[in-house]
Amino acid sequence: MKAQIITIGDEILIGQIVDTNSAWIATELTKLGFQVQTMLSVSDEAHEIESAITEALKSVKLTIVTGGLGPTKDDITKTTLSRLFQMPLAFKQEVYDDVVSFIERRGGKMNPLNRDQALFPEGAKWLKNRQGTAPGMWFETSGSVVISLPGVPSEMKGIMMDEVIPALKNHFPLPSTIYQTLMLTGIAESHLALKIEDWENNLPKGMKLAYLPSPGIIRLRLGFTSDNPAKAQEIIQQEIEKVKPIIVKFLFSQTEQSLELTLVNLLKNNAKTISIAESCTGGNLSHLITSIPGSSSVFKGSVVAYSNEIKTRVLGVDSVVLDTYGAVSGQVVEQMAQGTLRLMESDFSIATSGIAGPDGGSVEKPVGMVWIAIATKNQVLSKKFQFGTERSINITRSSLAALNWLREVLLHETFPDN
Amino acid sequence: MKAQIITIGDEILIGQIVDTNSAWIATELTKLGFQVQTMLSVSDEAHEIESAITEALKSVKLTIVTGGLGPTKDDITKTTLSRLFQMPLAFKQEVYDDVVSFIERRGGKMNPLNRDQALFPEGAKWLKNRQGTAPGMWFETSGSVVISLPGVPSEMKGIMMDEVIPALKNHFPLPSTIYQTLMLTGIAESHLALKIEDWENNLPKGMKLAYLPSPGIIRLRLGFTSDNPAKAQEIIQQEIEKVKPIIVKFLFSQTEQSLELTLVNLLKNNAKTISIAESCTGGNLSHLITSIPGSSSVFKGSVVAYSNEIKTRVLGVDSVVLDTYGAVSGQVVEQMAQGTLRLMESDFSIATSGIAGPDGGSVEKPVGMVWIAIATKNQVLSKKFQFGTERSINITRSSLAALNWLREVLLHETFPDN
Repeated sequence: MKAQIITIGDEILIGQIVDTNSAWIATELTKLGFQVQTMLSVSDEAHEIESAITEALKSVKLTIVTGGLGPTKDDITKTTLSRLFQMPLAFKQEVYDDVVSFIERRGGKMNPLNRDQALFPEGAKWLKNRQGTAPGMWFETSGSVVISLPGVPSEMKGIMMDEVIPALKNHFPLPSTIYQTLMLTGIAESHLALKIEDWENNLPKGMKLAYLPSPGIIRLRLGFTSDNPAKAQEIIQQEIEKVKPIIVKFLFSQTEQSLELTLVNLLKNNAKTISIAESCTGGNLSHLITSIPGSSSVFKGSVVAYSNEIKTRVLGVDSVVLDTYGAVSGQVVEQMAQGTLRLMESDFSIATSGIAGPDGGSVEKPVGMVWIAIATKNQVLSKKFQFGTERSINITRSSLAALNWLREVLLHETFPDN
Repeated sequence: MKAQIITIGDEILIGQIVDTNSAWIATELTKLGFQVQTMLSVSDEAHEIESAITEALKSVKLTIVTGGLGPTKDDITKTTLSRLFQMPLAFKQEVYDDVVSFIERRGGKMNPLNRDQALFPEGAKWLKNRQGTAPGMWFETSGSVVISLPGVPSEMKGIMMDEVIPALKNHFPLPSTIYQTLMLTGIAESHLALKIEDWENNLPKGMKLAYLPSPGIIRLRLGFTSDNPAKAQEIIQQEIEKVKPIIVKFLFSQTEQSLELTLVNLLKNNAKTISIAESCTGGNLSHLITSIPGSSSVFKGSVVAYSNEIKTRVLGVDSVVLDTYGAVSGQVVEQMAQGTLRLMESDFSIATSGIAGPDGGSVEKPVGMVWIAIATKNQVLSKKFQFGTERSINITRSSLAALNWLREVLLHETFPDN
């Protein structure tokens, strides 16, 4: 069953606000089994709204419209829909009472603009708004449903949860689509595509696969539509079991769990603590870990050793080693990891040192070269990575590479002494 | 001149990702003088893409399409456009060389999928992608322009800035809108609106004002459309001079310069260094500063002292003081600032300690309470802030409040000894 989402508002079209309503509604409609065919944003003008809805009615059974329902003059959705569906506006006592009671609960006063909110299209169904004063509306016209909701996200979500979703389940009983997302790191999109080409070509009919890349992370999403959600889940699970051996080295989550949360959970489960010494990542690695609530039980602290002076004085890096090999070297990053481990008395430590860019690169050590080390009491290892030229992406990718390496170490016990 | 933005991707239509590209592109097109008529999101299916573009060509002179250009199979925009505009794909050596050189710079290897990225529609103009391997394309057809860009935001933005915007200025000479943005921190949107109400009500006809809030920062954008850009700039400047005395306490930039860049520049100009001790901000404050290229000349380093043990052992916080007043207190945050100043031997230091949430709050010290201190060799000051309940926003707002306080100190010489 096809659906369309229409958002109304000049503030969207000039880029002043990002439309987050459409994604939220799309997630809910997809869960219900609808296929969102298009999302459309149009301006606050009657003819634009009218023509968008007229077009939608030609190809979809459900149209959800948000925006243009506030009490101010630039909000004209209600009068436009009333005219389009030939359902004249009339004063509706129960909507009026609801608006009055909402405003009184907030300690406010009714004004003429609020009174107009009780003008309601005759023949439309009222969708009660518990978070604001603009009522939602449900129109039925020659087998199609058009729903109009306020654009304020909290009001839109409230009416969707309380009124729209239960009513849609009742009105359109549908097969639903089950999705599952695999999260991978440490591999480029095109390399992953080649690795899993055979598997992808042999996916069962009806299985949809999408690659969703962001710097350092690829989300691989499988989707299957069926009348039987348990069966769809089983079919997806079978395919995941087939592809897992091929991608195990890169796969860190089979839910939408972030890499930092995965690592914090692993450390908790193993009752291990970490500390960090950051040079090129400049605090971002610590920030990722501490963005997880409860990370304090595994994360002791870190030193951002941005200058060489701090590397030697605070972390105890040997100044001869620093002069001989340079700050971006396996030798130095290993001593940084060992230094923070001693200082923080943690079970594991991670250290990073590299050239984030845009300046500071050379032929031997180009921008994007990053050394990462992991240390325990008895062992230290380091690895060299080569990322790109953009500073912020290099910082992100270095941080993710470090988190992922420690994840592998914890899983595969590369450090038998711990 | 009317324009349309089309985004392609099932991940948008099922609500898995929020389309932020459209708002970014709309902002840029609006600045160039275009009127974005609609934004549309469609699925990864050839006939949907084809019909969306065919429709757009009927009503707008410029269509920008993002998404569906990656090397994998679900990306079909290029073949669809090639067929629609009857410009067959052919191997293009200069695109190939560019892809090879991009991949080599990253230390990667070419694969057959990358090779396909050099297949290019004959007659289209190549838009070079410096952030990735998918080339952008510029099509002209019966007086209209259709531009196809990758969906990855960093790649889309790179091609827009480097290639598309200069070419559009050339192709469509339009009366342009001049914008200037004031950046403010430390004040809520509704308070700011009240403060500048009189000024706002007396703005000259044709002046557009927009409040663009994000956690901890408000961007106040003034816009004026004119055939005479110098005149528009002058009118905007007059209004800025009028409002400045009212907002001077909160205003940190009259360009779009971030707070962290403003602070790094101030430190450079004053030849001062800083170090940081972070508890609740967990590395984010250091990360903001080190995101600025060249920050190494003023930033010596930091200690993320997440556990109390590290606060005492590494930063030298007195354990009696810690037990008496608790980690979230003026006494402790001042000792943290003094500790990092000694350890890092910097001119200034900042320290943060607070309850980021969601757990750990109490009646006396609720979630969102944050202490910040600033120290120099001879002086230390601390201040208490109360933010909200959301962890990530509390971390952001604490970091910005700390940066802004140090900015004020540097500007107003509250610390006469330095």
